[in-house]
This record gives sequence, C-alpha cells and structure tokens, in this order.
Amino acid sequence: MLKKEKYLQKIYQGNIQRYGSNPKIRKVMVGPLAIGGGAPIIVQSMCSTDTRDIKATLAQIHRLTEAGCELVRVAVPDESASAALSAIVAEAGVPVVADIHFHYKRALEAVKAGVAKIRINPGNIGSADRVKAVVDACGSAGIPIRIGVNSGSLPDDILDRDSHKVTAHGMVDAALREVELLEREGFHDIIVSMKATETSVMIESNRLFRQKSDIPLHLGITEAGLPGYGSIKSAIGIGSLLIDQIGETIRVSLSSPPEEEIEVCWWILEATGVRRRSPELVGCPTCGRIEIDLIELMKDVQKILKDVSIPVKVAVMGCVVNGPGEARDADIGIVGGKGKGMIMRNGEIVRSVDEDKLLSAFGEELKILCYEREVANDKDLS
Amino acid sequence: MLKKEKYLQKIYQGNIQRYGSNPKIRKVMVGPLAIGGGAPIIVQSMCSTDTRDIKATLAQIHRLTEAGCELVRVAVPDESASAALSAIVAEAGVPVVADIHFHYKRALEAVKAGVAKIRINPGNIGSADRVKAVVDACGSAGIPIRIGVNSGSLPDDILDRDSHKVTAHGMVDAALREVELLEREGFHDIIVSMKATETSVMIESNRLFRQKSDIPLHLGITEAGLPGYGSIKSAIGIGSLLIDQIGETIRVSLSSPPEEEIEVCWWILEATGVRRRSPELVGCPTCGRIEIDLIELMKDVQKILKDVSIPVKVAVMGCVVNGPGEARDADIGIVGGKGKGMIMRNGEIVRSVDEDKLLSAFGEELKILCYEREVANDKDLS
Repeated sequence: MLKKEKYLQKIYQGNIQRYGSNPKIRKVMVGPLAIGGGAPIIVQSMCSTDTRDIKATLAQIHRLTEAGCELVRVAVPDESASAALSAIVAEAGVPVVADIHFHYKRALEAVKAGVAKIRINPGNIGSADRVKAVVDACGSAGIPIRIGVNSGSLPDDILDRDSHKVTAHGMVDAALREVELLEREGFHDIIVSMKATETSVMIESNRLFRQKSDIPLHLGITEAGLPGYGSIKSAIGIGSLLIDQIGETIRVSLSSPPEEEIEVCWWILEATGVRRRSPELVGCPTCGRIEIDLIELMKDVQKILKDVSIPVKVAVMGCVVNGPGEARDADIGIVGGKGKGMIMRNGEIVRSVDEDKLLSAFGEELKILCYEREVANDKDLS
Repeated sequence: MLKKEKYLQKIYQGNIQRYGSNPKIRKVMVGPLAIGGGAPIIVQSMCSTDTRDIKATLAQIHRLTEAGCELVRVAVPDESASAALSAIVAEAGVPVVADIHFHYKRALEAVKAGVAKIRINPGNIGSADRVKAVVDACGSAGIPIRIGVNSGSLPDDILDRDSHKVTAHGMVDAALREVELLEREGFHDIIVSMKATETSVMIESNRLFRQKSDIPLHLGITEAGLPGYGSIKSAIGIGSLLIDQIGETIRVSLSSPPEEEIEVCWWILEATGVRRRSPELVGCPTCGRIEIDLIELMKDVQKILKDVSIPVKVAVMGCVVNGPGEARDADIGIVGGKGKGMIMRNGEIVRSVDEDKLLSAFGEELKILCYEREVANDKDLS
C-alpha cells in the first residue's frame, strides 16, 4: 500500500517534471492538491468497483495510484456506499472524490466521511434549502464541488431551444446555470466539466466556457469506447484543449479497467508537452532510406530507458538525412547508419562508433546525462 | 491484388461516408484523387520497403490499400529506385508519390514513370534551371508537388534568426520560401506539410500557414514513436487541426510497419467526425453504478458490428442514469440493466427485453437499421 506521505512525496518532490497550467485560472484545493492557478495538470480516474466493497475499492485505488493517478472518484449511489467512505478515505493515500447524483444527503455524508471533493449538480438535488445545506457543509469543510455537464443529460429547455441538438452553447449554458446556483450561495470552490461524445462539441464547449469564466476545467470525452479508438478520441479532445492551455485536470474514460486510462492520460500530458514524468522516446518513421533495423533499435533503447525516471528526451534516428537535424531537439540522440552510428547530446555529435557498439555507447552516454541531471537537481533543491 | 477500378469504386461509391474538407482551399488533383477544395480528407502512408525491390514494395502497397490507405509514397534515393517506379505505378492500384531529396533528375525520372505526385523541396535541388526543369515536367504531366518542411531540417538562416529554436513562424517561413520558388515559375499545384516532433509547434505552424495561404495541407507529426504513445501524439496534432477544418490529407508516422498507421489515421478521422467508414461504437465508462458486464457486452456488440460496413453510430450503455440520454445521439443504442435491457433508435426506446435476449434483439434491430439505410442509399444513387 502506498502511504499518503510517500504518495505526496512522489508527486511533489520526485522526478516528475511539472509544467504549470494557466496561472490566471481560479485555484481550487482538492485535499493537498491544487487544481488551477498555475498548478500542474492533475490526472484522475474513477473506480469501477462497488464502493460498498471497501477492500476491492481500496485495491483498485492503489492500482490506480501506482499507475500514476492522483485523484480518484468513487460512486456514492446510496447510504451504504457513503458509509464505506471513511474507511476508503483513510486508506486511499490519495484524495477521494464522491460522485453523487440526485441525493443531497449522500453529499452531506460524504463531507462528513472526509472526501476531498464532491461531484454533484445542484440543479439535480431539489430545493434551494438542500443546495444550501450542501454548500454550507462543503464550505465549512473546505471541500470543492465539481459540476459535471454531460451531453447525454442536458436540461430539456436547453435542448428544446437548440432544436434538440447538443451544442457547445447548450453545454456551456447548462454549466453556467449550475455554477449560478452555487455562486448565489457565496460558494466559489468550483470545478466544471463538460463532457460530450462528439469531440468537436466537447472542444468547442470548453473553449467557449473558458472565454466566460475563470473556473478550472476538468476535461474528458464521455463514452469514448474501447481502448484503441477510445484513447485516440480522448487524446484529440483533451489534447487539443491542453495545447491551448485550457484544462486543469483530465480524465480519460475508456470501457476498460480504469488502470488502463492512466497510461493514456500520461501519454496525453507528455505528447502535448504540458507535463512529463518519464523519458520521451521519439523515432523517425521507417522509410526506404533506412539502413538499420530501427524498430529493434528503438525497442532496445526503450528497455534501457525503463530504469530511467528522469524526463529526458531521447531520439532514435535511422539515417543521416533527417537524423542529426531531428535529434537536435533531443537531450540525447542515437543515429543509426550502415556500419557506423552516432550518439548526440543537444544536437552535437559526442561519439561515433561501430554499429555493434552503438547501444552500449548510448547506455554510457545516457548514464552520464542522468548523473549530470541528478547533480543539477540536487543543486536546485539545496 | 486490388484493381484500380475496384479501388476507386470502393473509395468513391462504397459505403464510406465522406465529409468534405474546407471548400475554400485550393484543389489539387493527385491522379484521380482530389486533395483540398472540399474533397474528403485523404489517408496516406509511406512504404518502408526498398523501392528497388518491386515485389516487396507492391506487396506492402497492397497491404496498405487493403487497410484503407488511399495514397502511397515511396522513397526514390537513386536511379535504380526511379527505374523501379513504372512497374510499381502500373500495379499499385492507388496513386503513387515519389519521395525525393536533393536530386532533381530523380524527379524527372519519376514524372516519366507516371507517379501521381512528387515530394521534393525546390530549395534543396540546386540552381533555378533545375527547379524550372522539375516544374516544367510536373506542369506538363499535371502532377502536383508536395513541399515538406520538417522541424529537423529548417534552413540555417531561419534557425539563426529564431535563436536556434524551432518555431511555428520559422516553419511557416521555410514553407513559404519553398512555395515562392515554385510559384515564381507559374506552378501552383502545391501541397505543403510542416511536420515537427513537438505537437504544439506542428499545430501552431499549420494554423499560422492556413491564415496566410489557401494551399492544401498534409498533416503529420514526425518521429511520433512506437504505436501506443506515437498514436496518441499523432492524434493530438492531426486531430486538433482537423477539428478546426485545417488539413486536407493526413499521415500518421509510427516506428512500426506502415500498415499499423492506417488504422490510427482512420480512428483520427472518425473520432474528429470528419470522415467515417465503419460503425462507431461508443460506450459509457464503467463506474460503480453499473449493473451489467459492460465490457463483455461491448465486445459482443463489436463482434456483431464486424460484418457491418455502414457508418452507423452505436451506443452501449450500462445503466439507466445517463444511458438513455447519452444513447440519444446514436443511431442505435443498447442499454443494459439488471434483468431487463432496452434497444433505442434515435433516442426512442423501441424494445424492452429480458437481459438474456438483449443481444439478439440488438442484432435484429441493427439489421432493420442497415436495411433501411441501404434502401435510402439506393434511392440517393438512382
């Protein structure tokens, strides 16, 4: 089991390189994690277990955090589920979010159990009194509320207005209406998500919302599908917003065990360049110019990188036409060629060796690079 | 082997649903395929075989076209490679693009061999006379030229100007400089690509170029990496541009056999909604509310869909909270529940059946839907 302290140390002081989100966005604290206000973009997921099964839920939470998940949501459909929350919160080692639909009492119970965030739509919980009760409880406990608008459950009047089509304007209006219910009670610790099955609607909704509000955004494509296609769809929706500095926390929703979602989340963060936790391996596409077995070489390099927890950029190039140029951006590059190969550091050739010594030479230079980085890191921390 | 006629029929009259690209963009013909001018977005790839090995190259081309590739590039590094081109062009059954670096004579040979497009940078081939010779040959033959700017090989003066950083402005300036070399010779059948390893640079370059020119754009991330991460990175770069109607042809570059790139290309087209060739399967993420084995149900549904070549949208939902609402956008939906399940068509419940009959009821309703679509299609064609 991952202890809370160890977890936080891993997140905050480890080798995970963090790039900030947009600093102009409202900062919301979810337990010890900041979302928005320039904080790193947070990776989250949701348990697929029955929340009442504390053991199974905790086991899944620990698998998720080991995979790199930083915030875990659990469904709270009834009172026996909320009764399980304190035990889950105590052992989770990661902030826990309670996912609640309709029942305001579940929200009050979840706050008491010590969750770090509530996901609830105030428009669904009934009278203004109930909304006030939830807001008061969350406010006293310092717990934020995430409003989740979903293309599948837009209010009827908005759908009627928009000729029964799900539009970005409709999504944003539905979100702002929920926000208004909280803000009129003086509650501002809000995160908003607008998830749609159509990537274009999801992207447009979040772009539009960002123009109107400084509330941090939780990004996701809903019902993305099975891992292959679903990952691509999520990457397009989430990634294209992150590129434009929109989005403060992300969830990839796949029809698969949630542990698989975490790898895709990190791939998206690394591919957009907004956050990095491990070496990045880039390789040229194979083409007719290639003189070595690039794919095998990349797999060998990947094996060597498995032991490296520093976010270095590694380029593996198969020929001398684009190779040296494309390796320029990388911290370390390996350029294959017939008989001879090269190792590059920051665009400079540092070694030229026979093909059969290429991999070992790369390993040696990589060790030097990692050592230098560690020394530099130690200096930064001291 | 796929015959050219059969190939074109499959592309132009089959069940592949096509959405146009931006109609304001210059239209360029690549053999029988239009790129730009509102034409559908074209999927392409590049052979990894030695072009001189005609048999291996043709075999790979046929694997690529069977997978859904519509345009195939081959490397032409020397005269023996260009000598192989006519045999490849004759049997390819798909337009062939010659990829040429530095040697203008290879371009002239490729034109003679009947390729449908040349990829060459005029700035690399030497004197103005040589550029004119290539332009004249392509012009007479009605063959377009693709200019390919790559983050790894920007001109030194542009890199010097930009403090040795690869920037979007630098990429665009490099592209426009190449364009100018062709346009001053009166040649306008041009396609441009600006590929970078950084998704943000690639996206920004293409956005900027589109503001300055109506030349169609070939999109791709260079050196994307191995399939998992590389697909995600390509999806973000290509997908976020397609969402904004930027990009007329796409290539995913993975360090893997090129056949694997094609599936990712199609996933990107389908996930952005710009083009569709097969049923889309969406499913809700698994959560604690779920009362059925959603993943198994989706896999069963996917098996049924394997035989369907009509682009219907299918939703598989695991509960009644979001299920019916989220299935509203789908042509056909299957909503699981404890003991009972539902089949939906365009948001209306058409059947409610016992759990054990759910899959067969879905199969029946899907058949009806496909039959209706086929009848409608026949009407459209008559």
